[in-house]
Amino acid sequence: MTTGGSRLDPWVDSYASRANAMRASEIRALFAVASRPEVVSLAGGMPYVQALPIDMLTATAERLLVERGATALQYGSGQGDVTLREQILEVIGEVGVVAHPDDIVVTTGSQMALDLVTRVFCDPGDVVLVEAPSYVGALGVFRAYECEIVHVAMDDEGLVPAALSEAITTVRAAGKRIKLIYTIPSFHNPAGVTQGPARRSEILAIAQSAGIALLEDDPYGLLGFEGEPPRAIRADDADGVIYLGSFSKTIAAGLRVGWAVAPHGVREKLVLAAEAAVLCPSNYAQLTVSEYLATQPWREQIKTFQEVYRERRDALLESLQALMPDGTTWTIPAGGFYSWLTLPEGLDATAMLPRAVANLVAYVPGTGFYADGDGRQNLRLSYCYPEPDRIREGVRRLAAVIETELELVHTFGTAHGLAPVTGTSVPAPDLL
Amino acid sequence: MTTGGSRLDPWVDSYASRANAMRASEIRALFAVASRPEVVSLAGGMPYVQALPIDMLTATAERLLVERGATALQYGSGQGDVTLREQILEVIGEVGVVAHPDDIVVTTGSQMALDLVTRVFCDPGDVVLVEAPSYVGALGVFRAYECEIVHVAMDDEGLVPAALSEAITTVRAAGKRIKLIYTIPSFHNPAGVTQGPARRSEILAIAQSAGIALLEDDPYGLLGFEGEPPRAIRADDADGVIYLGSFSKTIAAGLRVGWAVAPHGVREKLVLAAEAAVLCPSNYAQLTVSEYLATQPWREQIKTFQEVYRERRDALLESLQALMPDGTTWTIPAGGFYSWLTLPEGLDATAMLPRAVANLVAYVPGTGFYADGDGRQNLRLSYCYPEPDRIREGVRRLAAVIETELELVHTFGTAHGLAPVTGTSVPAPDLL
Repeated sequence: MTTGGSRLDPWVDSYASRANAMRASEIRALFAVASRPEVVSLAGGMPYVQALPIDMLTATAERLLVERGATALQYGSGQGDVTLREQILEVIGEVGVVAHPDDIVVTTGSQMALDLVTRVFCDPGDVVLVEAPSYVGALGVFRAYECEIVHVAMDDEGLVPAALSEAITTVRAAGKRIKLIYTIPSFHNPAGVTQGPARRSEILAIAQSAGIALLEDDPYGLLGFEGEPPRAIRADDADGVIYLGSFSKTIAAGLRVGWAVAPHGVREKLVLAAEAAVLCPSNYAQLTVSEYLATQPWREQIKTFQEVYRERRDALLESLQALMPDGTTWTIPAGGFYSWLTLPEGLDATAMLPRAVANLVAYVPGTGFYADGDGRQNLRLSYCYPEPDRIREGVRRLAAVIETELELVHTFGTAHGLAPVTGTSVPAPDLL
Repeated sequence: MTTGGSRLDPWVDSYASRANAMRASEIRALFAVASRPEVVSLAGGMPYVQALPIDMLTATAERLLVERGATALQYGSGQGDVTLREQILEVIGEVGVVAHPDDIVVTTGSQMALDLVTRVFCDPGDVVLVEAPSYVGALGVFRAYECEIVHVAMDDEGLVPAALSEAITTVRAAGKRIKLIYTIPSFHNPAGVTQGPARRSEILAIAQSAGIALLEDDPYGLLGFEGEPPRAIRADDADGVIYLGSFSKTIAAGLRVGWAVAPHGVREKLVLAAEAAVLCPSNYAQLTVSEYLATQPWREQIKTFQEVYRERRDALLESLQALMPDGTTWTIPAGGFYSWLTLPEGLDATAMLPRAVANLVAYVPGTGFYADGDGRQNLRLSYCYPEPDRIREGVRRLAAVIETELELVHTFGTAHGLAPVTGTSVPAPDLL
C-alpha cells in the first residue's frame, strides 16, 4: 500500500516536493485485519467515550440548537469562539497555565495546532528536536513540512536534559537551524513517562538559553492517576512556550476541538494560518463544547475518565508482571493511555506483528514512533479502550507470542517477518 | 493591524519563509465597525442558516447521539465517514458527477480541501492560474504555500478561454511550472458569473491539452435560480479535474463539512495530507450531516434556500437598477451569493470604504480578490444574508456614497481615502 511513483498516476510528476514525504503506513493493511472484533487491540489510542453520559450530551446539543442554533450553524471567527476561549482558560488553569483569551487559537483538534505551528515556523530542512520515541502524528506533520527530525533520548522521567543540550550543540555545529523543541511532558505518547518538576525546569532553561521555541503538547495532562495534574511548562514561561491542548480525551475526540496557547506574535500568525487552512473551526462543535463546559460537571467527568483508565492501566501492568517472559520490560504510566514495552534481546516488534495478529492481539510496533528506523525492539501498548478483562486476555496472547518468538530466535537465530519499516508514516487516526 | 516585523515579537526571526506571506487584512479593523447592527453589511458571505428548520436539526442531533453516540464522539477515518461519502455521491450527482466513495475525501469545510490540494501539488514558486477576480480564501491558500498567482481574464461567462491559453503560453515561456488552474464555474465568488456548457468544454480542453490539473470549486452549484444546476466540469473528466464541494451553503456553514473528489493517485495523497493536518474530520459533524441527508428532505431545503436567495438577488438588482449613478455597472448572478460592481471611472472602492461605513453600509473592496493590486474600481456586493428590505436600504446608502464620491472627484479630481492595498490578505471568515 505504498503510494509513491505509481505509473498509473498521471499526476505523479506534478506533486510538490513535500508530497514525497507523505507515505501510507506499511502496517495499515495489517491493522485492517486487527480491527476485527476477535482481535484484542492494544494498538489504538481511542478514548473510551462510552464513559460519557450520553443523555447529558444529548440535552446539551438540543439546548444549543434551540437557544443558539443560528450561531452554532454559522461561520465563526478564525481564532475560535471567544466564550469557549475564556472557558479554555479554566481548563488550562488546572495545569497552572495563566493566559488571556486572546492568547488562544481554537483548532480542529490539537493535531491542527501542531500543523499550524509547524507551518508558521518551519522551512524545509529546518530541524525539530523530538523525543525518542515521539508521537507519530507529530512526526507526520514535521515530515509533511520537510523538517529534519532529530531524536533526543528519554529516560524514565522523559526527555533527558543533557541529551537535549548535546543535540542542540551538535545540530548547530552542523550549521543547521533548530526551530522547535517538541515535547509531551505528561503521560507521554508512546513512552508512558512523565517529566518531574525539576526535569521540566531544566528543559525549559535549556530551550530559553538556546532561544528555541518549546512546543509543549499536553493532551493527557488532566488524565493522571495520582494527585494533582502535573504543572505545565507553559505555566512558567508565556513567551517561550507554545502549549497545545485538546478536548479529545477529556470530552470527546469526535468533536475535533483542540487549541494552542501562544505568545502574541506567534498567535497572530497562527490565526492567519488557521484561516487559510479551514476559515474557522466548527461553531457547531465549539459551542457544543462550550455549552457542555458551562452546564455540566466537567471536572467530575474527568475524574470518571481517570478512574476508568487507572483500572485499565492496573489490569495491563498486573498482567504484564504476571505473564511477560524474562527480559521484557515496560514503563509504568502515571496517567494517559500508554505503556512502552521493550522486547527481549533479539526480538523485533515489527517482524512479530503478523504473528501477534494471527494470535488475535495487536499493538503498534516501535518503529512508527521514530523518524530514523529505531524502535524495532519496542512496541506501544494502549490500555485506554478495551475493558480490563480484554486487556488481560490481550496480554496473555501477547506473552504467548513473545514466548514463541523467543523459542524461534533461540532455535534459528532469527524470527522471520515483515521487511524493515523505514521512515515515518502516519497511521490511520484510530491508531494514534 | 499588520503583523510582520514587529520588534516586540521575540520569534520574528524564527518564522518560516511562508509566514511572511501571512498578512492580516488592512480592512479588518474597518469591518469590526461594519459589524455593528446599524450598518447594512453587503460584505459578508454568510449563508442564511435561519432558513433551516431548527426543530428538524435538533431532532437529527438528538437521534444521532442516542443511536450512534459512541461513533459520533470517537475518532474516525482520515478520509471521512464511508456512509457520508456514499451520500455525497447523491449530492454531486445533481451536477452530473459520477464517482466512487473511494474518490471522496471529507474535509473541514472545502477550504481545507483547497489547502490540501495546494499542499500536495505546489512547491514555492509554482504557478497557479486563477480567475481575475478570484475567491479571496483561495488566494490566501496559494499565498500560504508561496505559489505565484497569475490572474486570467473573465467576461460575463467567466474565465476567458483565449486568455487562459495565452497565460499558459506566457508562463511556460518564462520557464515556470503551472500546477493548477483554479476556477469557480458556477455563480462565481466574487464575480457573480457562470460558465456556460460550451465555455466549460473549452476550458477543460485547454487544461487537458496543457496537462494541467483543473481545480473546480463548486460551493454554490446547487444554488441556481433558473432551471437545472449547471453540469460540473468534473462530470466530463474524472482524471483531470479535482472537484471541491461543501455543505456550508446547502446545509450549514457551522458544521464545517466539505469534500474533494479526486483522481485515485491524488486522493491517496490528499488522505495522507489530511491525516497530518487534522487526523480526521469531526465524526460529530459528519454524522450530523449524514443523518440529516438520510432522514430530511434535503433537496426541498435547497429549493427553500434558492428561493430565499433569489428574492434577495432580485431586491439587490432592482435597487441597483433604480438607484445607481450612470457609469456604475454590475453583474447579474444566476445563482449564488454575489454581484460584482464596477464603479464609475475615477472612483476607488478601497478609498471609498470608510465613507461607506460612515454612511452605514459595507461591502468588500475589489482589491481583496486580486493578488496583484487590481480591482480598485470594483467591489463585491453580497445579498445572501440581509433581508430584502435591508438590501434595498443598503443599496440606497451605497448609491448616495457613490454620488458624493463622484462629486468629490469632479470637484477635486480625486477622493481621499485609505492607502492602496497591495497583495492578498485573508479577511475574517464571515467576510468570505
